[in-house]
Amino acid sequence: MRAAVLRSGEILVRDDVPEPEPGLGQVLVQVKACGICGSDLHFAKHGKEMLELGRQMEGMPQMGGGGDGRGDIDLDRDVYMGHEFAAEILEAGPDTETLPPGTIVTSIPVLLGMDGITPIVYSNTVKAGYGERMLLSAPMLLEVPNGLDPRHAALTEPMAVGLHAVNRSRITAGEGALVLGCGPVGLAVIAALKLQAIEPIVAADFSPARRRIASEMGAHEVVDPASEAAFDAWKRAGGGRPLVVFEAIGVPGVINEIMRAAPAQSRVVVVGVCMETDSITPFFGISKELSIQFALGYDPMEFSGTLRAIAEGEIDVTPMITGEVDLDGVPGAFEELGNPERHCKILVVP
Amino acid sequence: MRAAVLRSGEILVRDDVPEPEPGLGQVLVQVKACGICGSDLHFAKHGKEMLELGRQMEGMPQMGGGGDGRGDIDLDRDVYMGHEFAAEILEAGPDTETLPPGTIVTSIPVLLGMDGITPIVYSNTVKAGYGERMLLSAPMLLEVPNGLDPRHAALTEPMAVGLHAVNRSRITAGEGALVLGCGPVGLAVIAALKLQAIEPIVAADFSPARRRIASEMGAHEVVDPASEAAFDAWKRAGGGRPLVVFEAIGVPGVINEIMRAAPAQSRVVVVGVCMETDSITPFFGISKELSIQFALGYDPMEFSGTLRAIAEGEIDVTPMITGEVDLDGVPGAFEELGNPERHCKILVVP
Repeated sequence: MRAAVLRSGEILVRDDVPEPEPGLGQVLVQVKACGICGSDLHFAKHGKEMLELGRQMEGMPQMGGGGDGRGDIDLDRDVYMGHEFAAEILEAGPDTETLPPGTIVTSIPVLLGMDGITPIVYSNTVKAGYGERMLLSAPMLLEVPNGLDPRHAALTEPMAVGLHAVNRSRITAGEGALVLGCGPVGLAVIAALKLQAIEPIVAADFSPARRRIASEMGAHEVVDPASEAAFDAWKRAGGGRPLVVFEAIGVPGVINEIMRAAPAQSRVVVVGVCMETDSITPFFGISKELSIQFALGYDPMEFSGTLRAIAEGEIDVTPMITGEVDLDGVPGAFEELGNPERHCKILVVP
Repeated sequence: MRAAVLRSGEILVRDDVPEPEPGLGQVLVQVKACGICGSDLHFAKHGKEMLELGRQMEGMPQMGGGGDGRGDIDLDRDVYMGHEFAAEILEAGPDTETLPPGTIVTSIPVLLGMDGITPIVYSNTVKAGYGERMLLSAPMLLEVPNGLDPRHAALTEPMAVGLHAVNRSRITAGEGALVLGCGPVGLAVIAALKLQAIEPIVAADFSPARRRIASEMGAHEVVDPASEAAFDAWKRAGGGRPLVVFEAIGVPGVINEIMRAAPAQSRVVVVGVCMETDSITPFFGISKELSIQFALGYDPMEFSGTLRAIAEGEIDVTPMITGEVDLDGVPGAFEELGNPERHCKILVVP
């Protein structure tokens, strides 16, 4: 079958990828749409450093190697990527009960198999969303309801990341939010804040296009940090409310600038993935009693809740989808996504 | 009157400090005992950098100057210090109702006056605990109960710091704690964890003397990081419980080492005051969804609750008090406290 793969840092389109074969409890699906995630762009460029950092860490056995985890990926062989997908059921594996063929589904990007649990993120063996077909786990399938367009259902995954970050923040009515960075992650945070009726939501990004999308997703106030400091905009709009800051930029220096400029007692949620070493001034954090919560992923309830919210129109992902390509367009889309004026989320429709 | 003061980085004993005069709502007290705090040692050495960092920060108007706040301290003039005190009431200011003379009291180190609220921490004008007499605010006085020795009551302040850090952590039964650093702050954290019946409490310090005090204060397991990594000791003793790590060292590199070595989903409370720039690897925090809560000070309820716990014997501060000096001994005590084998908490008894 055809798939776009990562090999030695390049995105290539291959025609001869081995066809996935469903085992017990697995289902073969046809990919209908798969979003390109910023972390895939990052992995394409900095995969080696990401794997090395994973190896340095203790307390994360799932990243240390073994199975098809991230730990033992060979970057010089084909790496399958694509974890924001919606797909159509083709056939179930042996002795596997599931929804009927033709059903449109999505799933947390995790494959259960006889050899354990494998994330469908980066792998030399487990096929993923940038290809014609892939395997999913029958017990984890979620039917896409309400005749929802699979291209919208494919955004369940990134939008669930935003919901999870907001849940982690424990933000409540009467508190306000400042979202720094309006890429897909920041926008997903904005959508989740709107869903919880948080007000005001202040959002900052240098890109006019992204600020426009931020407004459409629910930000009450958008600010261009080139003309007004984000925390000044918050002071103007926040009305003295307790503040939760969402860091959705992921660039060195941002965390410390938040610590320097945030009001005392602010809570900071780091959802932007900075892969480099960063500098902080602990004295700022201590003097203001800040808290910094790092957030990653989502739980199954957050994932299914997000799908429901999209299907019922409570979250409208339309403004975020700025492009659509077939498999041949994937290498070009990886290039294009570097320009925030042109693109937010590009969908791969194989 | 006599007082030990900081002038141009030196601790000097002066005989001619102006006598404090109580104003409306204020009370003149005789200092009975005052603990020497690590932050005073730090301020004596790095006061200039601390004031500069305070000026850089936004969101902290009380540190930016004005009044007698930290912002406008002249380090070349005498600076009064000493914020861990117990004292005897001598006389009340004009039109001020308070406890009778002779009563032993303590108080949050804050002075209310016609010109606002001044922390009794570092000041060119507000007298503090390293002197014969000082002013306190009548509405904030707490009577030392049960005939408690004023030298023990003087430890209310540092012990309240530990209680506050533990409260901030939201640690609950079934979770365990790892305390890194067994100076006075780490020991106060251990005492507060014991008060909440947290088990196990694992404590790490290179100093045998401090490990011994940690055991006396309530640590179930003490570890010398030179012979076993602190997180290995936790793995051995923690029984798989969720972990709260208390960082009570305050040296660059410690936060990142915690992020690298801690189990996923751990909560980190930073209560050690690191005044230098520090490096972190956000990827560790993100991959493990760590949270980092910076903790400072205490609230009035925590302060009065700590005094009560000491007076009722629920916290025994005896093991922490390793020395006692008069005012002439203060300069030497500042020197001595650099050696963790010799000293933990030295009390000044003017």
